[in-house]
Amino acid sequence: MEPRTQGFLFDLDGTLVDSVYQHVLAWQDALDATGIELSVWRIHRKVGMSGGLFANALLRETGREVSPELAAELRRRHAEAYAARADRVRPLPGARELLAHLTSVGAPWAIATSGYRESAGPTIELLSVAPDVPVITRDLVERAKPDPDLFLAAAEKLGIDIGDCSVIGDSVWDLLAARRARALGVGVLSGGYGREELERAGAYRVYEDPADILQHLDELGLR
Amino acid sequence: MEPRTQGFLFDLDGTLVDSVYQHVLAWQDALDATGIELSVWRIHRKVGMSGGLFANALLRETGREVSPELAAELRRRHAEAYAARADRVRPLPGARELLAHLTSVGAPWAIATSGYRESAGPTIELLSVAPDVPVITRDLVERAKPDPDLFLAAAEKLGIDIGDCSVIGDSVWDLLAARRARALGVGVLSGGYGREELERAGAYRVYEDPADILQHLDELGLR
Repeated sequence: MEPRTQGFLFDLDGTLVDSVYQHVLAWQDALDATGIELSVWRIHRKVGMSGGLFANALLRETGREVSPELAAELRRRHAEAYAARADRVRPLPGARELLAHLTSVGAPWAIATSGYRESAGPTIELLSVAPDVPVITRDLVERAKPDPDLFLAAAEKLGIDIGDCSVIGDSVWDLLAARRARALGVGVLSGGYGREELERAGAYRVYEDPADILQHLDELGLR
Repeated sequence: MEPRTQGFLFDLDGTLVDSVYQHVLAWQDALDATGIELSVWRIHRKVGMSGGLFANALLRETGREVSPELAAELRRRHAEAYAARADRVRPLPGARELLAHLTSVGAPWAIATSGYRESAGPTIELLSVAPDVPVITRDLVERAKPDPDLFLAAAEKLGIDIGDCSVIGDSVWDLLAARRARALGVGVLSGGYGREELERAGAYRVYEDPADILQHLDELGLR
């Protein structure tokens, strides 16, 4: 029997790149500008969720109906506000080293993000990702997280069964999408969620950040 | 026997006012400007901790010794960076209403914050706190949270035994200080910590925000 190859599917913001808090306050700017008041922690808990679900949550929590026009305006304002903060965004400790290590040992990996290509592009550049690495952005699938589409598409691009993939993410949306995809969910604290939240959402293990994962790759079964 | 009066001791940032994420990114600005790189989630998990302990944590996590001069520079740069963001800071939902309700039913309450008077002053103004309400800031005690000094001083000002006080806070430092003070710790999610983190730190109950506390004051035993 051939040994089965294990794949690694990474979320981007908060998992490989230290950008969650900038995204959160950029969403606050966008919401404020359209007259929607939402506490910042509630925005934090929604980052990485699909735009459609975010709109439903806004309706439920603020009573404000989000029309397609308002959704487009929010997205535009968020992109602008995030761009103004993006100069402070860095790769997380160990992110480049972890990805380089996986490449050097022949472990296939990919990136799958709820962000659109346009906004995720500059973030991915920070990581110096080789052109042959699959990067699945929002534009490429029908539904974003917590639907499983992004991770399923990434596994397919790698040519690896999703059941042989680990999904690494900082939010409960990543972990819910991992479960729905039948992948192994692994959490990181670097997006600002608590360890227990990620464990309860189904994380097999929770690490601090990519540097911590690199120290413990054996725990994920990588030979 | 006289019925015992119950007191309420509130943390400020993240508990009554939606300011934690602005503080977090202001600390990132201050650290970056002095050449200290620290992931944003690690800063988030330290907000509200005493400056001396923060300095020890920086030394442990970054290897950088924080001299008294550097500590003073960090504090100054943080105050500047926070002031530049403070126009986005609002009271949390229900904060004014909860405090007004406590006043109207004759339940004594106070504010106890690890911030200095200078920086906490404008934040407290957002809440329209009456001049007879005790406000204990960092300047008034020997040690900040998670030492119990701030809450002990607040209870003393109210003239209520600390054992008859509830401490309401958003961070594990508030809850640790509550335990060390022998008060009842109550958590709120509005500072961005997870529910389970606060429960594990000893919170008797965890509410979403002040509006949620106001809906459930009976659970805290307030008659």
